[in-house]
Amino acid sequence: MLNTIMKKIITSFYCFLLLVLSSAGQQKTLQERLGYSKDTKLLIIHADDLGVSQSENAASIYAMEKGSVRSGSIMVPCPWMGNIAEYARNHPNADLGLHFTLTSEWKNYRWGTVLPANQAASLLNAAGYLYSDTDSLSLNGRPDEVEKEIRAQIERAKLFGIDPTHFDSHMGCLFVNPAYLQILIKLGREYKVPVLLNKEAFKLMYNIDLTKYINDKDVLLDKVFMAQPGDYKKGMSSYYTAVLKSIQPGLNCILLHAAYENPEMQAVTIDHPDYGAAWRQADFNFFTGAECKALLQQQNIKLITWKEIRDKLIRN
Amino acid sequence: MLNTIMKKIITSFYCFLLLVLSSAGQQKTLQERLGYSKDTKLLIIHADDLGVSQSENAASIYAMEKGSVRSGSIMVPCPWMGNIAEYARNHPNADLGLHFTLTSEWKNYRWGTVLPANQAASLLNAAGYLYSDTDSLSLNGRPDEVEKEIRAQIERAKLFGIDPTHFDSHMGCLFVNPAYLQILIKLGREYKVPVLLNKEAFKLMYNIDLTKYINDKDVLLDKVFMAQPGDYKKGMSSYYTAVLKSIQPGLNCILLHAAYENPEMQAVTIDHPDYGAAWRQADFNFFTGAECKALLQQQNIKLITWKEIRDKLIRN
Repeated sequence: MLNTIMKKIITSFYCFLLLVLSSAGQQKTLQERLGYSKDTKLLIIHADDLGVSQSENAASIYAMEKGSVRSGSIMVPCPWMGNIAEYARNHPNADLGLHFTLTSEWKNYRWGTVLPANQAASLLNAAGYLYSDTDSLSLNGRPDEVEKEIRAQIERAKLFGIDPTHFDSHMGCLFVNPAYLQILIKLGREYKVPVLLNKEAFKLMYNIDLTKYINDKDVLLDKVFMAQPGDYKKGMSSYYTAVLKSIQPGLNCILLHAAYENPEMQAVTIDHPDYGAAWRQADFNFFTGAECKALLQQQNIKLITWKEIRDKLIRN
Repeated sequence: MLNTIMKKIITSFYCFLLLVLSSAGQQKTLQERLGYSKDTKLLIIHADDLGVSQSENAASIYAMEKGSVRSGSIMVPCPWMGNIAEYARNHPNADLGLHFTLTSEWKNYRWGTVLPANQAASLLNAAGYLYSDTDSLSLNGRPDEVEKEIRAQIERAKLFGIDPTHFDSHMGCLFVNPAYLQILIKLGREYKVPVLLNKEAFKLMYNIDLTKYINDKDVLLDKVFMAQPGDYKKGMSSYYTAVLKSIQPGLNCILLHAAYENPEMQAVTIDHPDYGAAWRQADFNFFTGAECKALLQQQNIKLITWKEIRDKLIRN
C-alpha cells in the first residue's frame, strides 16, 4: 500500500517536473523575442571608451563605419566627449550608449566627475580626480554619490544630444559593488535602456549572483567576451578567431577597445601596456580587417546592435 | 620786473625738469638690473597653451629643448596638464609659468574650472564649461569667483609639483577687465612671480592704463609680439623675421603657440583656423628652424627666461 502511494507521489512529481520543463521549453529565447530563429547566433561587437581621446574616437568611428564594429559606449566625464557627441548628433542611427565612468586610470591624463567636486567627494582623490582603480572606488564611493554622479552623466549626455542605446560601465566600476549594480539596473529601467548584464561574467569576475537583482524584463547577454592580458600576448587575431568560432546561438557580445597607436594614445596609456596603445591598435586591426568579416560570414553570425534590442524589447 | 620774475620762474622750472629727467636717466634699465648692459636686446621666446593637448605639449617641449623657445605657460584646467606637470617635475630648470585659464574656446573639446562648478557658477556656461570668449567672461564673471578660481589653479599646479616662473593669462582673460587685472597683479606679488605686463599692448588691446595698477617693483615688458591672423596669412616666417629684426634693447617677448598639425590638434581646433593646427605647426617650424637661430645671432639678441627675471628681481 505504502509502495503504491509512493509510486503515485513519484509519478505525480515527475509529471509536475515535466510540465515545468516543458513550459520553460516553450519560453521564447531572446533571439526569438527579437524576431530571429532560435538557432541564430546574435553578436554585438562593441567598442568601449569612446570620448577618452581623439585617437579612440577616430578609430572607433572608422571601425563602426568601415569595419565590423556596430556599437560603442561613451565616457561622459572625458575630454573628448564633445567630439563623439557631435558624431552622435550627426548620426542618429549610430549605436551609442553610455560607458558610466567612475575611475580615471591613466598616469598623467585624468578626469573628475560631472558633478561639482564637493558633491562627489567620496568618488574623488586628493587632487580632485576619480580614483585610478575600482578597489578605491568600492571602498570609498558612497552609493548616494554614485547615483547622483551617474544621473549627472546621463543628463550631460542628453544635454549634448545623445539618446543612449544602452548602459554599461568603465572598468566594470558599477559591477564591483552590489549597491552600485542595483543603481545601474534601476537607472536602466528608469531610462528604458538595456544594461550590459551577464550571469556568468558577473559571477566569475565580481562574485555577484545576478539573479538576486534582475527581473524577467531585464535583458541578459548569454555570453560576453573581452580580451585579457594573456590573450593579447598570444595575439589578438588568434584570440578573436577562437572567440568567433566558439559563438553559440543566443545573444553574445564582444567588448573591445579600438584606437590608433599614435603619439596621443601612447601618451594617454604611458607605463600601462595592458589596454595600451598597441593593444587598441591590434583590436582596431582585427575588427576592421577582412579576416573578421569572412569569419562572421563563415560562422553564420548575425551582428546586432543595442539599439535594436532597446527598441524591440524595451521601448516597444 | 614782472618779466624778470617770469624769467626766474621759467629758469627754475627748466632746472627742475632737468633734474627729474636726469634722475630718471640715472634709473637703471631692466636689462641693467638683470646684469646686462643697457644696449642688450633681451628676448623671452614663449610658448602659450601648454596642457591643452598632447600635440601642444610634445611640440612645445621639443621647441624648448631643441629649438629657440625658452619658456612656456601651463593651462591648469586642461586635460593634458598632468603630462606637462610630469615634465616640469622631471625638469626643474624648465621655465614654466601658469597660463591662467578662464575660457574654453574650442568647439568640441572643452574644460571647466578647477573649483567645483557650484563655487564658480558665474564663470561657467549651462553645460558646465568655461565660456568660449572673453566677452562672456567679462560680462558674467564675478571678480570674487575669478580670484578663487585663479588661486585654485595655482594650488593645483603646486600640488602637481610645479613652481611657476611667471603668470600670464589665456586669451588675455585676466586683462579684459580691470578688476581681474588687479587680482592677477596682486597674486603675482603674493606668490613672488613676475606677471606678463606691457603698457603698450594693454592700452592698444584692452584700453587699460597699466600705470594705474602697478608699482615700481612690478616688472614691465618693453615690447610684446604675437602673430595676428593677418600675419599668419602673409606667412609666419616673414612675420617673425621682421619681428626679430625690429627688436630693440630692453625686455622683449614673443608669444607663440607650438603644436603639431596632427589629427588630435586638427580635431581640437576644428572650424577655427585662427590659432588652429596649421598655424601652430607654422609657429613650431619657425622656432625650431635654423633661420630663427641665425637671425637671433645676427641681431645679437640675448634669450632670457622668466625664471631668470623672477630669481634676480623678485625672489632675490
